[in-house]
Amino acid sequence: MSVTAASGFAAAGVAAGLKSTGAPDVALVVNTGPRKAAAAVFTSNRAKANPVLWSQQVIADGIVEAIVLNSGGANCFTGAQGFQTTHATAEAVAEQLDVSAGDVLVCSTGLIGDQLDRGKVIAGVAAAVAALSPDDATAERAIMTTDTVPKTAVHRGDGWVIGGMAKGAGMLAPGLATMLVVLTTDAGLGSEALDAALRHATRRTFDRLDSDGCMSTNDQVSLLASGASGITPDQDEFAGALLDVCADLARQLQADAEGASHDIAIEVTGAATEDEAVEVGRAVSRSNLFKAAVFGNDPNWGRVLSAIGTTTARFDPYEVDVSMNGVRVCHAGEPDRPRDEVDLTPRAVHVGIDLHAGDATATILTSDLTHEYVHENSAYAS
Amino acid sequence: MSVTAASGFAAAGVAAGLKSTGAPDVALVVNTGPRKAAAAVFTSNRAKANPVLWSQQVIADGIVEAIVLNSGGANCFTGAQGFQTTHATAEAVAEQLDVSAGDVLVCSTGLIGDQLDRGKVIAGVAAAVAALSPDDATAERAIMTTDTVPKTAVHRGDGWVIGGMAKGAGMLAPGLATMLVVLTTDAGLGSEALDAALRHATRRTFDRLDSDGCMSTNDQVSLLASGASGITPDQDEFAGALLDVCADLARQLQADAEGASHDIAIEVTGAATEDEAVEVGRAVSRSNLFKAAVFGNDPNWGRVLSAIGTTTARFDPYEVDVSMNGVRVCHAGEPDRPRDEVDLTPRAVHVGIDLHAGDATATILTSDLTHEYVHENSAYAS
Repeated sequence: MSVTAASGFAAAGVAAGLKSTGAPDVALVVNTGPRKAAAAVFTSNRAKANPVLWSQQVIADGIVEAIVLNSGGANCFTGAQGFQTTHATAEAVAEQLDVSAGDVLVCSTGLIGDQLDRGKVIAGVAAAVAALSPDDATAERAIMTTDTVPKTAVHRGDGWVIGGMAKGAGMLAPGLATMLVVLTTDAGLGSEALDAALRHATRRTFDRLDSDGCMSTNDQVSLLASGASGITPDQDEFAGALLDVCADLARQLQADAEGASHDIAIEVTGAATEDEAVEVGRAVSRSNLFKAAVFGNDPNWGRVLSAIGTTTARFDPYEVDVSMNGVRVCHAGEPDRPRDEVDLTPRAVHVGIDLHAGDATATILTSDLTHEYVHENSAYAS
Repeated sequence: MSVTAASGFAAAGVAAGLKSTGAPDVALVVNTGPRKAAAAVFTSNRAKANPVLWSQQVIADGIVEAIVLNSGGANCFTGAQGFQTTHATAEAVAEQLDVSAGDVLVCSTGLIGDQLDRGKVIAGVAAAVAALSPDDATAERAIMTTDTVPKTAVHRGDGWVIGGMAKGAGMLAPGLATMLVVLTTDAGLGSEALDAALRHATRRTFDRLDSDGCMSTNDQVSLLASGASGITPDQDEFAGALLDVCADLARQLQADAEGASHDIAIEVTGAATEDEAVEVGRAVSRSNLFKAAVFGNDPNWGRVLSAIGTTTARFDPYEVDVSMNGVRVCHAGEPDRPRDEVDLTPRAVHVGIDLHAGDATATILTSDLTHEYVHENSAYAS
């Protein structure tokens, strides 16, 4: 139970034959009201998939009745035929639920550049509607691609609930990480309040997850509110709870990143601005040499500093401190504690970078570069 | 014979004990004149190694007597002690050759963050001076780190010669690729002419090589001119020849990139500007997903388009064409020829991207992401 933890929602996940494995591949989440408020954020990739182009129009008025998601195909770079498939999918949901297609969000994930089988998707929609349940625990499995486990999170407030599900294991990078996330709440909030809370949360969670530097064409995070609890929580309290749920899901995405053997947190402190802290953390998170070194349990801090040097952030190379799992290996740009004091064998790795250029801070989550990552991504389409 | 192919130069490579393997690790190239003109370009990484900081001062007056290079240690983030080691190395060369230390370029390559053994370097300098030869073929081996073969190139003009040697296999990325290059010529050109020709050549060759997106702290490309041929070639003819030599060395660097099993040329056409063509090519060259797909001989063109979508270059996603090894797999942002018509088994892979946004073009050279790359870079420092 994830998206149905909040009252006022029903969901289902079914196998429509889009995945060659026969695993579930169509998910549906329906807001049963009384309110139908929503907010969503999308990939900043300029090459956007058809479901993203569609959903950007749907969210404009802040009203969403349902969201339908498929794995087994990204429906991206599939031209007019692909857009018509997205449109037909929304129409099928709308017809079955007796709502407007313009209030149905669509998400797709899978291989880019292949047409989705429209007939299978639409048959899947019918099956999903028939299977809708307020106690569903199947939707979160139907959105998985290379994920090895479903990702869900629930926050219970004082009489109100936030629930969520997420998918994503590869092509995880900022603005947003490559993933689909559906969040639901029974709190009585309007779309503007939801939008503010959602942007606040995603900017600090999913946007700071960067497993492989590759930004998706299909990312979408949606938040639907049913108002079924009858309670309108304080905006700051709700925003804080949503941040916690998003952070929980982001950590689950990180932990299931393709081939990862280490979960790496890069904590940048002493930056002149928060944006510069993010830029530094992201540059390190995208260094293949740093990531391969972590895979080899090698505290190669020179690769951290050489990545910092590629940024525009304010810093003096000879003032920077770097620690790894609590051992300060570099102080003021010079060797400090011996490398062999650092133990990188635990799965969790903390890299601390103090730029000594200000008071701002940010943490970027990433993964190591492993043989499994190469294997999985050299054989994905075939 | 590489840097000594041009008359007016002597060189040597010796083993000074910096590498644990006992392989040659100190190289020296001396300009015996009559002219001592030079130009050099350096890494744009803001974290610069001590030899780069030193050499930037040396090149300011356009006069260089000699260049000394060591492998076995980058001498980067080694503080005042490290800078003094670089200074002492230049002083040792100067004393032995009876020239000014301010006219001695220094280059280092190897692990960042370890002190170089100053005594070993200085003893190596003495041994190299004793071994100097106008027919040397050892210097190009003494600058190797993870390189599997030495890289040399020679161009013979009408009475004048350009020779060069290069090292670099990992941390190969732009501005400059991670590498050391020494180019020599006996043409009678001054430092300004050399500088113009060198910047023209490096911008189109080494700067368009991006094996792993990781920019070095130690890159340096130096061009020394002895004038010993007594001939002053036409500037355009010389610049064209230098471009050829640099392109030859860049291809050798690409072919020896760590763990690579494919040499990938990403040719971007139809860009609005040359800079935008480079930005697009570089974005694709840095996509781990694209690079892993090529390793798996998988023509996954969606990963090309999703990388283009992260750039600021002008393009309409629904006008882009993509070809792989001559097969147009994507036309106007939609699937074109079937993926299985593409044969990616040859080592050489050509990716053609037509943005249909203008007339500018650029080609970026990169490598695939392989198990060998991960293996080599997870075990480098240890």
